[in-house]
Amino acid sequence: MNKIEHLGIAVKDIEQANKLYESLLGYTHYKTEAVESEGVITSFFKSGENKIELLEATNEESPIAKFIEKKGEGIHHIAFSVDNIKKEVERLKKEGFTILNEEPKKGADNKWVVFLHPKSTGGVLIELCQERNNS
Amino acid sequence: MNKIEHLGIAVKDIEQANKLYESLLGYTHYKTEAVESEGVITSFFKSGENKIELLEATNEESPIAKFIEKKGEGIHHIAFSVDNIKKEVERLKKEGFTILNEEPKKGADNKWVVFLHPKSTGGVLIELCQERNNS
Repeated sequence: MNKIEHLGIAVKDIEQANKLYESLLGYTHYKTEAVESEGVITSFFKSGENKIELLEATNEESPIAKFIEKKGEGIHHIAFSVDNIKKEVERLKKEGFTILNEEPKKGADNKWVVFLHPKSTGGVLIELCQERNNS
Repeated sequence: MNKIEHLGIAVKDIEQANKLYESLLGYTHYKTEAVESEGVITSFFKSGENKIELLEATNEESPIAKFIEKKGEGIHHIAFSVDNIKKEVERLKKEGFTILNEEPKKGADNKWVVFLHPKSTGGVLIELCQERNNS
């Protein structure tokens, strides 16, 4: 488990949220990307060695739509970069964590991603991510 | 607004949470600190250039006790480091953010801290923090 790669933040309206984070951070987002399999549009801001990923749902079945319905807008997940996502999944399974998708799936920003169930991580949705061209 | 200094995570039992984050990250916390004014015990892990701050309430009036009652355990705040906290507060007020405490107060880890109201930041509790020996 390496550094925090990004923080995911669930927002209702990504255009409004882009303006808000621009006011907050003092600079603008550097890219926007749709991830159809997750039903989200994302927008990325750099912050030091981390990124901030805003996520707006594009349909009602999106995990982001369900999260906002249940908890409201706010911090959705912490993503840690890993060198070898399959090895890290094996290690975390042995440590007793519940893996939401054992088979890494394609996430935003050219990553393989795996999520850990918040019930096994004290209420925090943890994402592991590995660069796709690394694998 | 500089890099993300730390993420604050609300936990019910800091001893259990220390073990959980040790399993997750693969290394142990480097310090524990009580902040009496906030009614919390904190525990810090390093992660790249960021820190992860676990927070357990020490009394029922603590903001952490209220957060857990309302939302359950999970990510509580994002803290950004700033060079001049008073100037940053002035800038953010002009941008329309609601400041929870205009007068910086003493936080954990030798910091002056100011919080922005989540209603003005899309549901995310934002902390500004400045090293106390910087001021």
